[in-house]
Amino acid sequence: MLFYLQNKNQFYLNYLKCINYLELKIFSYLKMSIVENVFNISPLLIMQVISIICYGLFTDYGKEAVGTTAGSQTSNTIDKYYPFFQDVHVMIFIGFGFLMTFLKRYSHSALGYTMYLSSLAIQYGILINGFFHCLFKNSWNTITLDIQTLITGDFAAGAVLITFGALLGKTNILQMSVIVLCELIFYAINESIGVIEYEAVDMGGSMYVHTFGAFFGLAVSYVITNIEKIKSEKNGASYISDTFAMIGTIFLWMYWPSFNGALADGNSQHRVVINTYLALTNSCIMAFIISKIVRPHQKFDMVDIQNATLAGGVAVGSSADLVIAPWGALLIGLVAGTISVLGYVYLSPKLEEYGIYDTCGVNNLHGIPGIIGGLGGFISASVADDTLYGDNISTIFPGRANGRSASQQGLYQLAALGTTLTISIFGGLITGFIVKNLAESTEYFEDNENWGYEEENQLETANIDNTL
Amino acid sequence: MLFYLQNKNQFYLNYLKCINYLELKIFSYLKMSIVENVFNISPLLIMQVISIICYGLFTDYGKEAVGTTAGSQTSNTIDKYYPFFQDVHVMIFIGFGFLMTFLKRYSHSALGYTMYLSSLAIQYGILINGFFHCLFKNSWNTITLDIQTLITGDFAAGAVLITFGALLGKTNILQMSVIVLCELIFYAINESIGVIEYEAVDMGGSMYVHTFGAFFGLAVSYVITNIEKIKSEKNGASYISDTFAMIGTIFLWMYWPSFNGALADGNSQHRVVINTYLALTNSCIMAFIISKIVRPHQKFDMVDIQNATLAGGVAVGSSADLVIAPWGALLIGLVAGTISVLGYVYLSPKLEEYGIYDTCGVNNLHGIPGIIGGLGGFISASVADDTLYGDNISTIFPGRANGRSASQQGLYQLAALGTTLTISIFGGLITGFIVKNLAESTEYFEDNENWGYEEENQLETANIDNTL
Amino acid sequence: MLFYLQNKNQFYLNYLKCINYLELKIFSYLKMSIVENVFNISPLLIMQVISIICYGLFTDYGKEAVGTTAGSQTSNTIDKYYPFFQDVHVMIFIGFGFLMTFLKRYSHSALGYTMYLSSLAIQYGILINGFFHCLFKNSWNTITLDIQTLITGDFAAGAVLITFGALLGKTNILQMSVIVLCELIFYAINESIGVIEYEAVDMGGSMYVHTFGAFFGLAVSYVITNIEKIKSEKNGASYISDTFAMIGTIFLWMYWPSFNGALADGNSQHRVVINTYLALTNSCIMAFIISKIVRPHQKFDMVDIQNATLAGGVAVGSSADLVIAPWGALLIGLVAGTISVLGYVYLSPKLEEYGIYDTCGVNNLHGIPGIIGGLGGFISASVADDTLYGDNISTIFPGRANGRSASQQGLYQLAALGTTLTISIFGGLITGFIVKNLAESTEYFEDNENWGYEEENQLETANIDNTL
Repeated sequence: MLFYLQNKNQFYLNYLKCINYLELKIFSYLKMSIVENVFNISPLLIMQVISIICYGLFTDYGKEAVGTTAGSQTSNTIDKYYPFFQDVHVMIFIGFGFLMTFLKRYSHSALGYTMYLSSLAIQYGILINGFFHCLFKNSWNTITLDIQTLITGDFAAGAVLITFGALLGKTNILQMSVIVLCELIFYAINESIGVIEYEAVDMGGSMYVHTFGAFFGLAVSYVITNIEKIKSEKNGASYISDTFAMIGTIFLWMYWPSFNGALADGNSQHRVVINTYLALTNSCIMAFIISKIVRPHQKFDMVDIQNATLAGGVAVGSSADLVIAPWGALLIGLVAGTISVLGYVYLSPKLEEYGIYDTCGVNNLHGIPGIIGGLGGFISASVADDTLYGDNISTIFPGRANGRSASQQGLYQLAALGTTLTISIFGGLITGFIVKNLAESTEYFEDNENWGYEEENQLETANIDNTL
Repeated sequence: MLFYLQNKNQFYLNYLKCINYLELKIFSYLKMSIVENVFNISPLLIMQVISIICYGLFTDYGKEAVGTTAGSQTSNTIDKYYPFFQDVHVMIFIGFGFLMTFLKRYSHSALGYTMYLSSLAIQYGILINGFFHCLFKNSWNTITLDIQTLITGDFAAGAVLITFGALLGKTNILQMSVIVLCELIFYAINESIGVIEYEAVDMGGSMYVHTFGAFFGLAVSYVITNIEKIKSEKNGASYISDTFAMIGTIFLWMYWPSFNGALADGNSQHRVVINTYLALTNSCIMAFIISKIVRPHQKFDMVDIQNATLAGGVAVGSSADLVIAPWGALLIGLVAGTISVLGYVYLSPKLEEYGIYDTCGVNNLHGIPGIIGGLGGFISASVADDTLYGDNISTIFPGRANGRSASQQGLYQLAALGTTLTISIFGGLITGFIVKNLAESTEYFEDNENWGYEEENQLETANIDNTL
Repeated sequence: MLFYLQNKNQFYLNYLKCINYLELKIFSYLKMSIVENVFNISPLLIMQVISIICYGLFTDYGKEAVGTTAGSQTSNTIDKYYPFFQDVHVMIFIGFGFLMTFLKRYSHSALGYTMYLSSLAIQYGILINGFFHCLFKNSWNTITLDIQTLITGDFAAGAVLITFGALLGKTNILQMSVIVLCELIFYAINESIGVIEYEAVDMGGSMYVHTFGAFFGLAVSYVITNIEKIKSEKNGASYISDTFAMIGTIFLWMYWPSFNGALADGNSQHRVVINTYLALTNSCIMAFIISKIVRPHQKFDMVDIQNATLAGGVAVGSSADLVIAPWGALLIGLVAGTISVLGYVYLSPKLEEYGIYDTCGVNNLHGIPGIIGGLGGFISASVADDTLYGDNISTIFPGRANGRSASQQGLYQLAALGTTLTISIFGGLITGFIVKNLAESTEYFEDNENWGYEEENQLETANIDNTL
């Protein structure tokens, strides 16, 4: 009996040891490699579960995408919108993605985050925008998905990526995911106020997308940027990373007429394409000329060419569908290209003195040109008399159907611009303070923070691991 | 007279010497540089002559492309299909081409072979597919060329390039040309059985293109891969080659809705675009999340991001035109993205232990997601009652026009999946044994095998030449 | 009083000193960095002012883009032309731009100049072409802007970029701007003679765009190339610059059917797409085969693959909309691909012996294939009997509406080819002599000539500055 007890004790001890060992083994294995990771990353996983549930509860196919014959259309809008949609898609994923590869050691993160954040922004942007449209219209319907919805999803992703441009190299995936969700809420509120309350027209999103995204990003950057880490020799380009960035620039430049005109129709869309095309040729030419004038040794600077060439597309946005005349479009392009280069050369260093760090210079490409665009919309709307557009003035400015005058419409345009500035800066500051509480990146502008590499990068990775 | 004879003799000898010299000169010149080359390359030349003859004998313009007024259409299908066609074209040549540039010393071959093999696959794919369609329908007509024919040519090229992905870096141009021709025959047989005999639906080619191409490639790779040569430090990426590869990834990702919907119509096409778009956003997001969970140090791996982000497009393929609901598309994307990353991390090393080397991991991107897609098609077809689609159930499932039930249709879908797996593996093994008899590459994963370079690469080229 | 005067004197002296100092400061600052630059660059600035004025005076929206209801169209041509237009746009900016990045130290200039010169060519091309069309038709109207006008603007940019290809690495921005303006005038004259006077058909611009641009460029190059500076080790590619160049090649290759068919209609456009697609597959395949035959060690050469693969698209241009049968298109592709590679291997070195330097080998890609295309158009037009096209023979060949016979039409096609060769060579020589008077680049094939870089490139830049 004693033997038995002893034995049992022994057995029990062995059993405990064994369990302990296994537990340690399993626990350590799981803890180190999977469980802990799952836990760390769980907010992102939960967001995807929520997304699927929300799509299950609140969305359905639009009437041109349903399965039943009753709703089927012989002339489907997919034919009309699809080419424009895909161009916008290319701008978001190739355009913004490659434009941001210019940093010499952050190209992979630029491309990877562009894909991840845009996908997130598309999914949640459709849901959040749908929610606020219902709220502001006080009419609660299922969110219907059709090709136009997908385009609005891409537009939301555009605003998010402009914000990402101001923060490039300084944030990790958890920080950026929170920023994206917060931004989408403010974005949807601002767009709902502008479109539904003010009935302000902004065909190319100069205000709702560009100005909003830029100032939101600057505000977040102001709050969260770590001044120590920003002084990195990695905050610059290499010959090759600059070449990759040009892929982004050129695709953005080419497809901008599609962005400004994606949701326009007929003559109006035709005009958007012509105006945007002309404005872009001139902002491109002026970017080269002004860069050569103001940069040292009369040489072009890659930063100007990668960005200011596009300023015409942003600035013509609000008025792209209006009858601004071809020379008007060229003039907008000339002004935008010039101011954008001057912004990169003179304004950005000033802002950095005030602690506003803007990695891609989105202020000069989206912020200021967006404001120019908003003002252009204000002017164009104020002088748009009925004869210029014939009876269809109210198809251009829905607000004028109810007796609003041209100058009144102009003031509503101005109000939308002011609201955009207010909400974007205010929302960005709040979001910045929220995100400041999350763990931040160890090193700025460095892909090793996010990506595991083999061989040649092994050593560098090891070094970074030690500091974690 | 003697003098004359002597002289003549002398003359004759000189003449002989001269001829001999010239002959040697010409012969050696020609032999070394041209004649031998022509002889070596003659199979490829002959194939082009055969191609032109076959096009002369067996093809003609379709009725919307002929020259006579009688056949001319005011509403031409080119307007409808062309944007989708060009997107597919970009996926084949830029998408697959750049995706395969990830190897540090094989980018030029990846791009070059993509162009060459796809052009070959397009030309012969149209002919061979046309032949087998006539055979299976037992109705012999001229093969008519129109925009849809060109799209099917691109689809065949897609299957070929997936196979090429499994073999990347391990084959030369003659081997690959033979593999392409063999594959196109098995591809056409499989597709004819699936579409004509089973009337199984596979809108996005999950089975006929992705699963087929992947398992065909794995089977060929199993037979021909040289285990000695595979252990090369060149079998890996560099920072820059990884960035180039992202060009391919992103274009594939963006245009996937065009691939799945290229041959769909109206509401059905509209649905394909929405479903594929949603599935892709979720496979993209999950690729990032799962990569971060299972990879060391909680860091993303470029291999996962370059590939698994796309798995949603493959997996939603078979059911993309069905009413799977937006949440269903998201769920398919979630599952596919997750499984694809796990495949790269856990399955690929296992397969290599069994001697199945898969350079691009096509098994994880096309093979398994393709099977998921096939099963998704089986489930969707099995539960598709008449009310879901209204009267047009037979436009979605042609087989159901003749009284086939939903569950019967589901079983036919399963049969198509089984047939695809059988024919692709069987065909791949046969092809592998045929190709094993051809001369193989001296070194794997090395552009110097195929490309002549100047200067900096001269030395390396010389070294390789010595070993030839 | 004296004190006052002394004081005043003192004050005055101080004042002078102060002014002097300020003047020096301001003057030196302004002079060095801005004023002098503005003066140097003023011709380019003035051109932009002139452009805006001309657009204000001479252009207006086309009737499908105007604002009034009267001119608004429910079925707008933007839907039809836009996808083709954007493909052409991609060819111009991404295609030509990246194709020319192949030089190891001139990628940024290749991309930057492509953007700048094309924007300039688009703006002025529309104006100058519009002017000469009015002149040749002797009917003076406002130049109307619609999507077709934008496409013709892109075509003019295409000719300009082909010329730039022959001059790549050898010219600065002022030289190129003058060349562009001169070329656009000769281009418009040649095109007006061909289209309006001869009524010669050239759907894909084999003659008016490709042949013209190439021979114009060769003529300019012959006059201005500095034989000392051409012998630079920088006149070559690196592994990475060759990979970038393939982005250009592949986009050109894929979208070529859009270039050839952008302005075609209905069946005719459908045929263009099929013919161009087939011709391209064969020129691609032949480029690989012939490169392997004639290049040393039976290895592909990147130069051939980047260029000769495209020759089919050029050569099929003039006859792309004709009923040349699928095998005819393949044959044209076979011939063009073969001759283009042979041109790179055997002809280019010969031309260099005669002092004709052609950086990109545009003679082999655009010059000779363009002539093949022109001859193809001559043959196709000569054998086009009425039955082949039905009544719509005059929609294909407008000249035949007025009783012109097939062989007469053929001779007009030949005349257009001859005129193109004459005007391009003559115009290029004149332009060359004009440009020879401008300051030229210090070093050929070097980005530091045009671009300011930081850090790693600083030293190199400094060295170059010393030599200025």
